[in-house]
Amino acid sequence: MNKFVNIAIVGLGQVGIYLYNELKIKKKDIEIKTGKKIQIVAISARNKNKKRKFNIDKKIFYSNPLNIFKEKHVDILFECVGLSDGISKKVTENALKKKINVITPNKTLIAKHGDYLAKLAEKHNVNLEFEASVAGGIPIIKTIKDGLFTNKINKVYGILNGTTNYILTEMEKTGETFDNVLKKAQQLGYAEPGNPKLDLNGFDAFAKVRILSALSYNSLISKKKCIMEGIENIDVKDIKIANQLNLRIKLLGISEIINGKLFETVHPCLVGKNTYIGNVNGVMNAVITHGKPVGETILQGEGAGPGPTSSSLLSDLVSILRGGIKNPFGISSNKRKKAQVLNNNLYTNSLYLRFEVNDKSGVLSNITNRFAKFKISIKRIIQTPDKKNKKATIVIITHKTTEINARNCLSIFKKNKNILKFPTLIRLYN
Amino acid sequence: MNKFVNIAIVGLGQVGIYLYNELKIKKKDIEIKTGKKIQIVAISARNKNKKRKFNIDKKIFYSNPLNIFKEKHVDILFECVGLSDGISKKVTENALKKKINVITPNKTLIAKHGDYLAKLAEKHNVNLEFEASVAGGIPIIKTIKDGLFTNKINKVYGILNGTTNYILTEMEKTGETFDNVLKKAQQLGYAEPGNPKLDLNGFDAFAKVRILSALSYNSLISKKKCIMEGIENIDVKDIKIANQLNLRIKLLGISEIINGKLFETVHPCLVGKNTYIGNVNGVMNAVITHGKPVGETILQGEGAGPGPTSSSLLSDLVSILRGGIKNPFGISSNKRKKAQVLNNNLYTNSLYLRFEVNDKSGVLSNITNRFAKFKISIKRIIQTPDKKNKKATIVIITHKTTEINARNCLSIFKKNKNILKFPTLIRLYN
Repeated sequence: MNKFVNIAIVGLGQVGIYLYNELKIKKKDIEIKTGKKIQIVAISARNKNKKRKFNIDKKIFYSNPLNIFKEKHVDILFECVGLSDGISKKVTENALKKKINVITPNKTLIAKHGDYLAKLAEKHNVNLEFEASVAGGIPIIKTIKDGLFTNKINKVYGILNGTTNYILTEMEKTGETFDNVLKKAQQLGYAEPGNPKLDLNGFDAFAKVRILSALSYNSLISKKKCIMEGIENIDVKDIKIANQLNLRIKLLGISEIINGKLFETVHPCLVGKNTYIGNVNGVMNAVITHGKPVGETILQGEGAGPGPTSSSLLSDLVSILRGGIKNPFGISSNKRKKAQVLNNNLYTNSLYLRFEVNDKSGVLSNITNRFAKFKISIKRIIQTPDKKNKKATIVIITHKTTEINARNCLSIFKKNKNILKFPTLIRLYN
Repeated sequence: MNKFVNIAIVGLGQVGIYLYNELKIKKKDIEIKTGKKIQIVAISARNKNKKRKFNIDKKIFYSNPLNIFKEKHVDILFECVGLSDGISKKVTENALKKKINVITPNKTLIAKHGDYLAKLAEKHNVNLEFEASVAGGIPIIKTIKDGLFTNKINKVYGILNGTTNYILTEMEKTGETFDNVLKKAQQLGYAEPGNPKLDLNGFDAFAKVRILSALSYNSLISKKKCIMEGIENIDVKDIKIANQLNLRIKLLGISEIINGKLFETVHPCLVGKNTYIGNVNGVMNAVITHGKPVGETILQGEGAGPGPTSSSLLSDLVSILRGGIKNPFGISSNKRKKAQVLNNNLYTNSLYLRFEVNDKSGVLSNITNRFAKFKISIKRIIQTPDKKNKKATIVIITHKTTEINARNCLSIFKKNKNILKFPTLIRLYN
């Protein structure tokens, strides 16, 4: 790479505009550290005149990012639009084909098209870097690709979404409902004001799990449908009961090799209050890897917000400025194998089940008989009567059982008039 | 670098011999991941015929490692002898001058001669890598040099020595004395059987602090004398009292920029039992960095043993095999500045002080008057009488005071006949 490096930023939302400002501030520092002089030669967003946190140079503004390629020489492009397809994909594709290095925090783009884009980058001998796509400021991708690279990793999991972790933490702290806490999170900028759905339903964390799997096991990104549950149905009642049981609810993303097969999932988990993961609170993210011979490695840091994201974007920039072409997923794409995946039905956990029932004799035995029939043994039962309304809450903690067995066992409770709603199920972390 | 890469290992102790075996096992995997075919062409140790954990190829054995340079073409040399000077320095110097890349886990060599050796590596356009020198398998050096590189770091601290952390954890768990637990640690291979002094007195952790400082602040390695205390004087009595106060004793290595000046130290600290750092137990290491804009980043993992160390050594190998010459300390040596250092006397902490006294009237007021004179205010006093022996233990927790003030205040207690020994001092973590 030449001493003078031209940069384009496509997308000037929360992340893009912060990055734009950081690049201007740190220009001198980057030159000292890498010997390269960077210059922002093009920026692009939908609306030129929108009010932004930092002023932009309108002379280098493009409404259509594809025009940048026609008019400017660019060495490194930041894709900060954030779509899984559409203009995000188009800009990235175009750049790589034109031998422009691409840096992106876009997890949905990489989770969906990462294999294709990595091949494209390798074919055109440029870099495609995406450190900021997983766990914000935590350099987990470089850690797996570089620091732990020769280890045999068999598990990687953690708290991969700051928004949901903040909401769960606040619900426990304040006793407020999910809806109220969500509103607060939106006011504080932790959750998208328009559509927070992709955070809340686990989709965001799941995209990160897919990226972590591919990096950890040197495999292609799996396309298989998986168990993905968010926190939308977590009731403050469950948080309180968990509290009494010395447990805490966390949304975990989990990728694991079980009997030689890949298993990926995102769902709320009950974890011990005294465990490490049970104490990662607020907007913090944490990623835990198990590898041989290194053992367990934990990385924790701020998982969201423009500051941490920008830290990761700039680490990718420095990596490219230092020179050399790296394989986007650590090893060459033609060496990455398709992962054999585990049948979701075989996933095995202890379960927390909360039943809301009419307080009538026979209801409990109805439930326990059903469990016995499916050979699900019960570890603990807590029945709390609500005498005034002649109702009761029954919480059952089971021993381990498979997904399929649990599903079959519980199916009957959809149509029992004494069971007021289908039971709430939360898995215990193994 | 060519497709065929020749490797030499100098030093076949616990780490060297494990590495030798790992390289042989992972040869194929490394070729898949990097496209390079590695071959071990020379090994060296003092004793050719010593019984080792893995068999060695005696045909490539050298009693004098300096002869390797005369007879073999070597691309990458692992220095695993572990001395701060002597043959470790000589081999590293010779290799770099002959344009051979060097990888070492040797923290004392780097802490003492790192600046000189880095310059030498840069001058001869080769790599000098030392990921394994700090915190075993935790890729903290790459994290600071790459993942967090554009952040402004102002603090890095943590538990940097697995041996001492294991001993403190065991003393708390079993109530056994320091000497007994040390013996157990030696039997388990956590402490050096011959001379565990460098672990116990804080020297090992301190070398790591110096390396972390240089990397975090882009400065030269400081040579200044600092406050360095180990755990040799930690009494099981203090551990028990700490326990009652909901505190725990940890040996912390701390590097911090205070008012623009560098402050480095290693000493035992009282930390809250409910804090993160208070729950890093056994042989685990943890490193915490504070940076802008990334915020707090935590890395935790196994800090000792040949497995984790070898993981880091191989990560350096892969980094070199992937190509490119990197500055050993992230930025070019001529850009690294000498750090301004803080006067140790100005270091400020709350203190835990344990006095063993004759149970006579006036002794406590003697102590408290002295504290008042030096304006050290007292947060808490716990006096426990030992009636049978007419003695008492007085524990005082103070508000914050400087090192110099505390030292001047306490000096008088050396020659007080009712104070049976000079008080035990442990700093509280801020």
